[in-house]
Amino acid sequence: MSEAFDAVDIIRTKRDRGTLTPEQIDWTIDAYTRGAVADEQMAALNMAILLNGMDRAEISRWTAAMIASGERLDFSSLGRPTSDKHSTGGVGDKITLPLAPLVAVFGVAVPQLSGRGLGHTGGTLDKLESIPGWRAHLSNDEMMRQLADVGAVICAAGTGLAPADKKLYALRDVTGTVEAIPLIASSIMSKKIAEGTGSLILDVKVGTGAFMKTREDALELARTMVDLGTDAGVRTVALLTNMSTPLGLTAGNAIEVEESVEVLAGGGPEDVVELTVRLAEEMLAAAGVPDADPAAALRDGRAMDVWNRMIEAQGGDPRATLPVARESETIYAPADGVLVELDALSVGVAAWRLGAGRARKEDAVQAGAGVRMHAKPGALVRAGEPLMTLLTDTPERFERAREALADAVVIAPEGSRPAQELILDRVS
Amino acid sequence: MSEAFDAVDIIRTKRDRGTLTPEQIDWTIDAYTRGAVADEQMAALNMAILLNGMDRAEISRWTAAMIASGERLDFSSLGRPTSDKHSTGGVGDKITLPLAPLVAVFGVAVPQLSGRGLGHTGGTLDKLESIPGWRAHLSNDEMMRQLADVGAVICAAGTGLAPADKKLYALRDVTGTVEAIPLIASSIMSKKIAEGTGSLILDVKVGTGAFMKTREDALELARTMVDLGTDAGVRTVALLTNMSTPLGLTAGNAIEVEESVEVLAGGGPEDVVELTVRLAEEMLAAAGVPDADPAAALRDGRAMDVWNRMIEAQGGDPRATLPVARESETIYAPADGVLVELDALSVGVAAWRLGAGRARKEDAVQAGAGVRMHAKPGALVRAGEPLMTLLTDTPERFERAREALADAVVIAPEGSRPAQELILDRVS
Repeated sequence: MSEAFDAVDIIRTKRDRGTLTPEQIDWTIDAYTRGAVADEQMAALNMAILLNGMDRAEISRWTAAMIASGERLDFSSLGRPTSDKHSTGGVGDKITLPLAPLVAVFGVAVPQLSGRGLGHTGGTLDKLESIPGWRAHLSNDEMMRQLADVGAVICAAGTGLAPADKKLYALRDVTGTVEAIPLIASSIMSKKIAEGTGSLILDVKVGTGAFMKTREDALELARTMVDLGTDAGVRTVALLTNMSTPLGLTAGNAIEVEESVEVLAGGGPEDVVELTVRLAEEMLAAAGVPDADPAAALRDGRAMDVWNRMIEAQGGDPRATLPVARESETIYAPADGVLVELDALSVGVAAWRLGAGRARKEDAVQAGAGVRMHAKPGALVRAGEPLMTLLTDTPERFERAREALADAVVIAPEGSRPAQELILDRVS
Repeated sequence: MSEAFDAVDIIRTKRDRGTLTPEQIDWTIDAYTRGAVADEQMAALNMAILLNGMDRAEISRWTAAMIASGERLDFSSLGRPTSDKHSTGGVGDKITLPLAPLVAVFGVAVPQLSGRGLGHTGGTLDKLESIPGWRAHLSNDEMMRQLADVGAVICAAGTGLAPADKKLYALRDVTGTVEAIPLIASSIMSKKIAEGTGSLILDVKVGTGAFMKTREDALELARTMVDLGTDAGVRTVALLTNMSTPLGLTAGNAIEVEESVEVLAGGGPEDVVELTVRLAEEMLAAAGVPDADPAAALRDGRAMDVWNRMIEAQGGDPRATLPVARESETIYAPADGVLVELDALSVGVAAWRLGAGRARKEDAVQAGAGVRMHAKPGALVRAGEPLMTLLTDTPERFERAREALADAVVIAPEGSRPAQELILDRVS
């Protein structure tokens, strides 16, 4: 078959800092999906994009071409507004769990298509799968029915959405081309736009435990994604939030579900509550429900009611006892003073090494594994007091988890105050 | 098997403008050759090298690792100096044909491992194969015997030399990563150093018909290759020569052999003679024979004697009639004046389209096809006078060859003078 374009010409154009035409982009994504552009050609193009960039029109078209590679969902038959949240990934980030039912309380449908964890950042599906009976995979019909009945669904993204992105992401993962802002932004947004949500709130993490280490990079990513959403007719807002320390007091799977349930019961760590409520306010405002009071819906049990129905609808028992790790070890405070630093990346890597995360896609995770923290930055601690509990079914993992935590904790003299702003910026 | 390095780490290092360690480079080339580094990973790394560069030590190690991927020849048993010439490729560049026997006249062995043409630049082996009976493929033993007996051999490079380069070059060809100076230099030099020559003269072409379009790029490539040769103990000199117009009056296969034989008979176009003699002087000086007079050896028939023996040793009949194209068309001068431009790339593309070159490696070439020129830049021409004759066995090719030549010729008023310096610079 004769092709409309030559892959080498397209690679050379981007290599030489040129701009790709809409037709070149459409052909590239389509030809890659059907195998007429080879992996090695796409890898070279990705590296050229990473190093030379793409402009707003190129990124927008690249995203549209990925959407066009698969199906699009349509929630218009629900007869109510839809809103979704996406986090770029962090340590202890269980916000989706309380947030989806909380927003549904106010009549906004929340189609939360989620993923699994890879590396030190946890995955929402892995966490929920620690609930006995709960299943992540729903058909499109099941998802629509649950959105109509319960108002919230957290499930695995089907393979029909942006299949080009799936193939491209696997390639980027092995070719050192993950860290390209145009490719990250188009990967996330192609799935969210194809999913058909009416509005979208992005939680772009910044800090050691996040993908974006600097505020500058995070802002660029946020700006790029907000532009993409806006160009596609999705009301999109991004918050930049702090990921220099874990969210809440748990990093793992079952222990994060437990903490989420505490938040839904009106309690839970202050930072988790703050971010849940703030994101709910943003989602509700974007969905056209500006006067709701989500904090009240956490306190009075309405969010918990939706949670219970949401878990049950997917086969889970919200009242079942969650799995508990077989073994634990404690890490103690080395000195008196103020805990000024509890490093997110270190805790994330420790939880991962304890079995809460996976190194390869095909690995299983341990439901009970993780790190339970007993103090957050700002807390006064005494030497010998427990700082963290390490949890695993496989005690041979303790040693490497401790290594990851060797420099995680900084204790300063009394009177010191850590920098602990949670919400750093807003892009709309 | 557990690998010493992770390909993604190595890609990231170069992507982020880091320097690769000798161990990383050795592993990369070895692992790519045996398939543990995938094509898509090498493609991403090549693009990062193209855009971010390599320093002298990295290029030197990269070259050494490619040499280590295969066998090395050793000419020390010949008991005389060896010298080789490499041209980066141009239009009408038949210099190797008269040059190899000419240098051998003075007792220097010339092991000239050559390639085939691809695209608009011709290949030495394609040209020689127009001689009835001549064969390009020799075993290492046959090559050594011919060097001992005749003193000169022009043959195909065996597959045993730098096999990593062969695999890498095929990858670069389809991934838009050919034009990286570190990769071009290491590709050329790995084969030349593995070949075992004691000295090497590089003819780096500059101009429209050459790979390097600017003098600056050509100088950088020349400098890089001279450094690589020097670091490997090969006496290496580079000349930068003009490729804005074809060399001599022929671009093709049999017609270039015919012109080469004219030079060996003491005649031939002035520019071909000048470059042949200059390169011979450089090769002889580098091989330790500084006082030779190669121009005399062209005039007095000594070079022709070696040529005849060299062709016969490889099964060819140096007195046989060469193939002639079945069809021809003439292009006439459109005006009176001085021919100030006869564009090398245009003539190269026309010869290629007429059948002298190939678009894909597996294509055959026509022995008789090509372009015969009747005037060189600087010549006074009259309107209606023949400027070029197009030659092919397949007349349907004339139209596209004429298209390639549409802007090839510039005729200026009498008294104008073209810029026609042949040798532009020397790097040692």
